[in-house]
Amino acid sequence: MAETAALADTLKNLIDVAEGRAPADMLITNVCIVDVYGHRVVGGRVAVAGGCIASVLFDDRDAAVPDPAAAEVVDGAGRYLTPGLIDGHLHIESSNIRPAEYARMALTRGTTCAIADSHEIANVAGTGGLSFMIEDARRAPLAIKFMMPSCVPALPDEQAGAEISAADMRAFMAAHPREVFGLGEMMNTPGVFAADGETLARIAAAGDTVSGLVDGHAPLVAGADLNAYAAAGIIADHECTDPAEALDKLSRGMYLMLREGTCSHDLDVLAPLVVEDPARARRCCFATDDRAPSDAFAEGMIDNALRRAVAAGIDPVTAVAMATLSPAELFGFDHGHAPASERRGAVAPGKRADLLLWDDLTFAAPPAAVYAAGCLVAEAGRFVGAVAPEDARLRALADELRGSVKLPALSLEAFSYPFRPGEAVIDAIPGKAITGCVRPRTEAGLRRIMLIERHGRGAAAQAAGADGDGPAGLGLVGRHIGCGWVRGYDISRGAIASTIGHDSHNVCVLGDNPADMLAAVRAVGQGGHVLVRDGEVVAKVDLPLGGLMSDKTAEEVAREHDAFVAAARQMGIQPPLDPIMGVIFLPLPVIPALRIRPEGVFDVSAMSYV
Amino acid sequence: MAETAALADTLKNLIDVAEGRAPADMLITNVCIVDVYGHRVVGGRVAVAGGCIASVLFDDRDAAVPDPAAAEVVDGAGRYLTPGLIDGHLHIESSNIRPAEYARMALTRGTTCAIADSHEIANVAGTGGLSFMIEDARRAPLAIKFMMPSCVPALPDEQAGAEISAADMRAFMAAHPREVFGLGEMMNTPGVFAADGETLARIAAAGDTVSGLVDGHAPLVAGADLNAYAAAGIIADHECTDPAEALDKLSRGMYLMLREGTCSHDLDVLAPLVVEDPARARRCCFATDDRAPSDAFAEGMIDNALRRAVAAGIDPVTAVAMATLSPAELFGFDHGHAPASERRGAVAPGKRADLLLWDDLTFAAPPAAVYAAGCLVAEAGRFVGAVAPEDARLRALADELRGSVKLPALSLEAFSYPFRPGEAVIDAIPGKAITGCVRPRTEAGLRRIMLIERHGRGAAAQAAGADGDGPAGLGLVGRHIGCGWVRGYDISRGAIASTIGHDSHNVCVLGDNPADMLAAVRAVGQGGHVLVRDGEVVAKVDLPLGGLMSDKTAEEVAREHDAFVAAARQMGIQPPLDPIMGVIFLPLPVIPALRIRPEGVFDVSAMSYV
Repeated sequence: MAETAALADTLKNLIDVAEGRAPADMLITNVCIVDVYGHRVVGGRVAVAGGCIASVLFDDRDAAVPDPAAAEVVDGAGRYLTPGLIDGHLHIESSNIRPAEYARMALTRGTTCAIADSHEIANVAGTGGLSFMIEDARRAPLAIKFMMPSCVPALPDEQAGAEISAADMRAFMAAHPREVFGLGEMMNTPGVFAADGETLARIAAAGDTVSGLVDGHAPLVAGADLNAYAAAGIIADHECTDPAEALDKLSRGMYLMLREGTCSHDLDVLAPLVVEDPARARRCCFATDDRAPSDAFAEGMIDNALRRAVAAGIDPVTAVAMATLSPAELFGFDHGHAPASERRGAVAPGKRADLLLWDDLTFAAPPAAVYAAGCLVAEAGRFVGAVAPEDARLRALADELRGSVKLPALSLEAFSYPFRPGEAVIDAIPGKAITGCVRPRTEAGLRRIMLIERHGRGAAAQAAGADGDGPAGLGLVGRHIGCGWVRGYDISRGAIASTIGHDSHNVCVLGDNPADMLAAVRAVGQGGHVLVRDGEVVAKVDLPLGGLMSDKTAEEVAREHDAFVAAARQMGIQPPLDPIMGVIFLPLPVIPALRIRPEGVFDVSAMSYV
Repeated sequence: MAETAALADTLKNLIDVAEGRAPADMLITNVCIVDVYGHRVVGGRVAVAGGCIASVLFDDRDAAVPDPAAAEVVDGAGRYLTPGLIDGHLHIESSNIRPAEYARMALTRGTTCAIADSHEIANVAGTGGLSFMIEDARRAPLAIKFMMPSCVPALPDEQAGAEISAADMRAFMAAHPREVFGLGEMMNTPGVFAADGETLARIAAAGDTVSGLVDGHAPLVAGADLNAYAAAGIIADHECTDPAEALDKLSRGMYLMLREGTCSHDLDVLAPLVVEDPARARRCCFATDDRAPSDAFAEGMIDNALRRAVAAGIDPVTAVAMATLSPAELFGFDHGHAPASERRGAVAPGKRADLLLWDDLTFAAPPAAVYAAGCLVAEAGRFVGAVAPEDARLRALADELRGSVKLPALSLEAFSYPFRPGEAVIDAIPGKAITGCVRPRTEAGLRRIMLIERHGRGAAAQAAGADGDGPAGLGLVGRHIGCGWVRGYDISRGAIASTIGHDSHNVCVLGDNPADMLAAVRAVGQGGHVLVRDGEVVAKVDLPLGGLMSDKTAEEVAREHDAFVAAARQMGIQPPLDPIMGVIFLPLPVIPALRIRPEGVFDVSAMSYV
């Protein structure tokens, strides 16, 4: 009843402001409002009160309505006013920064709401990792909605650092009421197709989340399997790489998230689906999935998707609706049980005042101004909001994530395996999460790739005598150390290693010689990306939090990342391949075709080792 | 947890059928599927299991997938397959039949889900009336979602038969968990504009309903008032009569319901909004609001709206989406917390198997077949489903509604008031709920209209001596008997009376002479529409349940209605004016401009008596 009384008070204030009986906190005048409902751009004024929009006055109909009184009047100077952007699916950890830093960065690019799946840290540290993410996010004015990672580990037999069962999910949600927004991307597609009991129990557990939604991840799934997947109620997919595949999913009731990240660039290929028939835009959104800070600062995030969508021929108002109204409808933000402070996706009365001012609708530059719940938080790409300091409780949660790298002892012999002519080789495809499979006759143009378990299993097996009298680590090969070959990643005279290796985050190392590979693995320490050339560490990004996230600012990590990429480019890794993203997704066992796992090279389509 | 286990079992069955491991209950082959998500028509097959869709196979992509095994195979013979139609807003009582009869009738026209506001019976009998509606509806296979009437009475000072406060709503919902779907049309617009405490408490009470939604009713509301109304979170409006008004509301985040009923025909005038920009269709639905059975059988219901929408130039797939996907998104049926059996609005896996087969997409004839939750319930306009008989509990609820007409004694003198030149006269507008105001100098072309309180207030005042020594009823004029004049309702040598008089359902009588008016009022008995000519009752529709609903079948009531209308046409009431709907809405005090109330003629815009 107290909640109801508060709701009635909020409504009363909004109504009083709309009717001119109470002053607004802010009045924005002289703007061209992008009206995603009416599908038009129209001049007008917007009054904000208590963090929400109280009134929208359109010049074509409301010119005679006097300006509402307001504590602050902002002259929009004829700029375009849009709702704040919603990122439909992303992993904060993939930006290698903490949630509060991610928030600072994303807000400068107009993202005011992000649906985050903390799948990465959960694979290292379980629900403790999720608790850290939730608490750190509270420090900053970005609304981050946390999904419960559905597949920790990504496949039942993955060697991850933690496991989250349906029962674990329910226990966490009971202990943290209303903190879990939905169930994160269901990537255990075989579990769904088989109607596996534990998988269905996890899907059913989504009923306890705020939205009740289950997000999807179903690359190349079609036919009977796609029907099974959609029948399970899974509502969205961000893994489409082909318009026919995308239409297949759209027609089954799944929202499409056109992904434009750092590793995966699917927007251009999918845009024709909307250009061809804009009616489909109602069920299409944008997502970054994984976005490096350097790219975020250089090109943008969802604003970058907007820019590319418009460049691809999607009408700007439709593109804005895809970044705002469509995800709002998807996630239950537009209407329903949500109070005004949780209603998003449009410049309309009774919605949260997440508002962006733009110089034009090409989205070439970041928003001129970003308001989150009515507060100015960014101007022209610069963060001007407030981030609360870390408190003792949060520090303790962060400290739990340190010291997560527990590697076995390793010798050069473990890295010195031979190439077998005709063996299945991973074919890296720049700009795509999917990989191919090739079977070359010689090792010309190939590089070694290894995945080394780092959560303590390999070290324990070693302590139990797995290596016998042989060289350190050799006895773990095929069990905790996977060895293979990759084509399309042309590193020379060196190696790259990382404690990020999707999704179990074992240490992935790739190079053209065993010595540099061993040196790179040894240099990861308590977490990070490492680049070794001729035996020397030439670049490093420290990631002490779970081996995934830095303690530094987004800007610092971006600079470290840029230096790292520059060094990698010197070693032969050429665009469009991203040196880091191009490595760390190669272990991901839920995206076709071939992947590296601690047991060896894995065929995702056949769900078996080659 | 039992609910969760049941959910997992349902999912398992759907998945097993989709994957071909278990037989479907029904397979529909050889159909052209109207795909509202992909916005296209494409050949395919649909498998149904447990009342839900397990699998949709499209010829363009899934031709190689074998037919799922099925207990029954239905050859669609190349017909069009659409989702079941959703009526976004309606009053069952306005069809003068019980809910189970309404269901039988609506299903024959392809409506498989109806959002019903039992505002009428609630104004007579309070929440007891709502209980009757809910229980009677259970007998038939139409999914009727009952809203809690928000404005009983319609305005605080209305002389209705009952009152439902916010506290009453909460008590009813606590006693009937999950039976109330949302809050019905908020027609007390002055209460919203004023941020009246009781009004806001009712809006806040919507949080306890299944959907959390508040439906709207805001004819001609604009500017600051419209902002206040939308800021209150009111999500839809079915009262638009002008495209500019409609766009105004659409842009404020309100869904538009294009109404095509018996009294109000707003579709043709609003269709250009969608023809001009089909992107707006995502927030546009259809509603019948009030539909006489004779019209329903002759022209249809939402299928009639579809037919007219297509005729008005809306693309058929868009029109189907407006009748299915758009209301499904509005009401939370598409996705979210709803289980598969409550997901509607598309032919897609994991949705309820509410399916229609059509000969063509002009919607000229009723659907060739109607499936409700996978069961065949109608064929070519004929109901073939099952309706359960009335049980003792339901009979008791029905009996509570009988004997509701408590009129005062009346004499001819009460009907014999003079015309005052220049007085404000109600201008009836055929096909519109709104009325005009005229001030004629003479009574040429005018008719008398009276509203007589019938819930016992007038009778009690009379017993307390209100008439003094004067003629019966004369002392009640201006307090419990309102007298006025109307233009545009050309009845001759007689009168029409009804126990339906929106929304308080006092007795409304209209005629060209006092004697026939008195005779008509006397003939209403325990409820009904009465037509008197030259002193004789020439037509009657008995409505013993609350004075609103018949005990007879929809077909019988349609025949009675047709006979009534035919008799009225003989008395000078010409199309497009509906003789019954044209009278019974004249008392409605929440639609501009002039109305008749028990106190006299009322100016809705000024909220005062003239």
